[in-house]
Amino acid sequence: MISLDPNSPKFQDVATPALVIDCGALQANIASMQETAARAGIFLRPHAKTHKSLEIAHRQLAAGAIGIACATVAEAEALASGGIDNLLVTAPTIGGNKLARLVALQRRSPLTVTVDHLAQVDGFQALLTAADPPLAVLVDIDVGQKRTGVTSTEAVVELARHISSRPQLRFAGIQGFAGQAQHIHNAENRRDAAAMAAAILADARDALKAAGFAVGIVSGSGTGTSEYDFSDTPYTELQVGSYIFMDADYGRVVKTDGSRLPFRNSLFVLATVVSANLPGQFTVDAGTKALAFNGPAPDRIIGAPQGSTYSFAGDEHGIIALPSGTAAPALGARVLLGATHCDPTVNLHAAYHVADRDGSLALWRVTGRHGAAQATAPPH
Amino acid sequence: MISLDPNSPKFQDVATPALVIDCGALQANIASMQETAARAGIFLRPHAKTHKSLEIAHRQLAAGAIGIACATVAEAEALASGGIDNLLVTAPTIGGNKLARLVALQRRSPLTVTVDHLAQVDGFQALLTAADPPLAVLVDIDVGQKRTGVTSTEAVVELARHISSRPQLRFAGIQGFAGQAQHIHNAENRRDAAAMAAAILADARDALKAAGFAVGIVSGSGTGTSEYDFSDTPYTELQVGSYIFMDADYGRVVKTDGSRLPFRNSLFVLATVVSANLPGQFTVDAGTKALAFNGPAPDRIIGAPQGSTYSFAGDEHGIIALPSGTAAPALGARVLLGATHCDPTVNLHAAYHVADRDGSLALWRVTGRHGAAQATAPPH
Repeated sequence: MISLDPNSPKFQDVATPALVIDCGALQANIASMQETAARAGIFLRPHAKTHKSLEIAHRQLAAGAIGIACATVAEAEALASGGIDNLLVTAPTIGGNKLARLVALQRRSPLTVTVDHLAQVDGFQALLTAADPPLAVLVDIDVGQKRTGVTSTEAVVELARHISSRPQLRFAGIQGFAGQAQHIHNAENRRDAAAMAAAILADARDALKAAGFAVGIVSGSGTGTSEYDFSDTPYTELQVGSYIFMDADYGRVVKTDGSRLPFRNSLFVLATVVSANLPGQFTVDAGTKALAFNGPAPDRIIGAPQGSTYSFAGDEHGIIALPSGTAAPALGARVLLGATHCDPTVNLHAAYHVADRDGSLALWRVTGRHGAAQATAPPH
Repeated sequence: MISLDPNSPKFQDVATPALVIDCGALQANIASMQETAARAGIFLRPHAKTHKSLEIAHRQLAAGAIGIACATVAEAEALASGGIDNLLVTAPTIGGNKLARLVALQRRSPLTVTVDHLAQVDGFQALLTAADPPLAVLVDIDVGQKRTGVTSTEAVVELARHISSRPQLRFAGIQGFAGQAQHIHNAENRRDAAAMAAAILADARDALKAAGFAVGIVSGSGTGTSEYDFSDTPYTELQVGSYIFMDADYGRVVKTDGSRLPFRNSLFVLATVVSANLPGQFTVDAGTKALAFNGPAPDRIIGAPQGSTYSFAGDEHGIIALPSGTAAPALGARVLLGATHCDPTVNLHAAYHVADRDGSLALWRVTGRHGAAQATAPPH
């Protein structure tokens, strides 16, 4: 374990606010989840919506992941351009030229897509030709989040039938993501929500098998429910994402025995002390444009007195309250703030500064953010 | 006034979620605020933290703004590279190589910086040489936000003395931003908060004059309090930002007579209907990675039945609840969601799609976001 010193010389020229990874903790998290999956005999298909990073996807695959999941077409394109294949796009997609972009991607490397409506099935079929390899399709099932997915076992079987009847499509299985369950802090309530989702998927799988379909893939789960989803569940693969970084909210998600999830905080935002004129507090240059707002405040502040607490103070600032009797760091000093909600915090930055055991600091790009492709291409 | 149709052919190939500007409304807002300022005999120095856009900054200057304010060194560098000079950096800055970057910028075009501590004064002086033109410096004053700024009139005068004693610095005036007042919905409470901030600045200005300093600039204010800050106040210039776009929260900020602020909503996020399997709702592909979370939900949804309401549903999705008896738009159809909190919403996107009266759609870059410079340069 390395100690992260925000005032280490290696951070001196890094412009704050900046995203920082403790690479040792990242690697430990990747290894730990992969070992658990291997023991359970279940595949991992880690979700790249968390990291949007080629380097991390390659590390997850090297550790043994069966493939990578992504949420958007832009993420899939960015990962494929960096040599990641066997991608699964987990969000049912339609509209604009997105189906055409996915078909173009499928012509470069194998791809699996998800659908929850006949319109998406027909859209893909219309774009594919007899020369294309069949496109693997999962049926997305609503397992309680009420966001996407078909909402009955009958609808699953009907959609599988439609997929199978299209010559250029291949029914590959089902997906259901219990997003509503991942952040339930209480272990028993979270286990119950996970079990409900798993039961819906098991019913759908059984109905499909009874109707004569092979169900090769049952995909879903996340970091919060993975503890339960590795045993006695229908999943063939888990789409875990946040375990690589953890964050302030996942720090409150406890296991049945009351312990924290077995992953380390590896994601931080480096910030600079820019003002300290008021007693009992100081101001850093990281606010809502550097740390996601939809989660608790950072629960770890490295470089400030023990017991200091962070509050958002606008787009570019945070105020750190000091415990009584302690002094603020010097103006210009650095602190490391533990990530709030990890996925949307990453999305606020263009790059990671990756601190490794050997003292080096690497720069990894965050890729596939919204609008990035358009902004570098001429307008239509 | 143009009507914005999310299903117009010009949006067909725009990948969603995408930031959209109603250019007519934008131009009307720029003209309206400038006219008010001209009538009041007060300068405008619009704040680029809202838009991070060269095109908008140039339009504000063309309308008569005296200069442009920005929050970060990266914003200042991006604007200067695009030919915007007379920049004011409104946040006291220190640490890493940021003072050196500001000094490098000052060698290219005139710059004004803000300080709230002797360390910043000494830092700038140490980097400047006798060959450099003097750097204009404002003293930042805390006018109630408790974030940055000096906290007493005596400290203002002392810091002005230090600035004046440094040969390469020029004391240019004072700044105080009442961030805490801008979003107070009730007109009288907002006016009182604005008056308190103005009184602190007036006291500081008077004390400085009594001590023999010329106070050329008194800068501050924002869209929410501009109504009050244009008359009987110490400001020589207002740093208004959000008026160009407005947003769901500013829609609740009312004037003394109960009417809305006299600016039009010009900022939207274009989203696609991606799922609609549940009665009474449908799902769009814009969530917390496309719309800032720290504000009310979008209060305008163009393309959905009147009375529809948006709720966040994760990083990539929003759920739109339908009024009873209405039907969801077709899968693949588009909707335009009014911006939530405008500044951090812009920060989530790499480009604006600008819909003009003539039916054209231009692409304007969002520039100077966190980490963008590092990600395009090799690591140190």
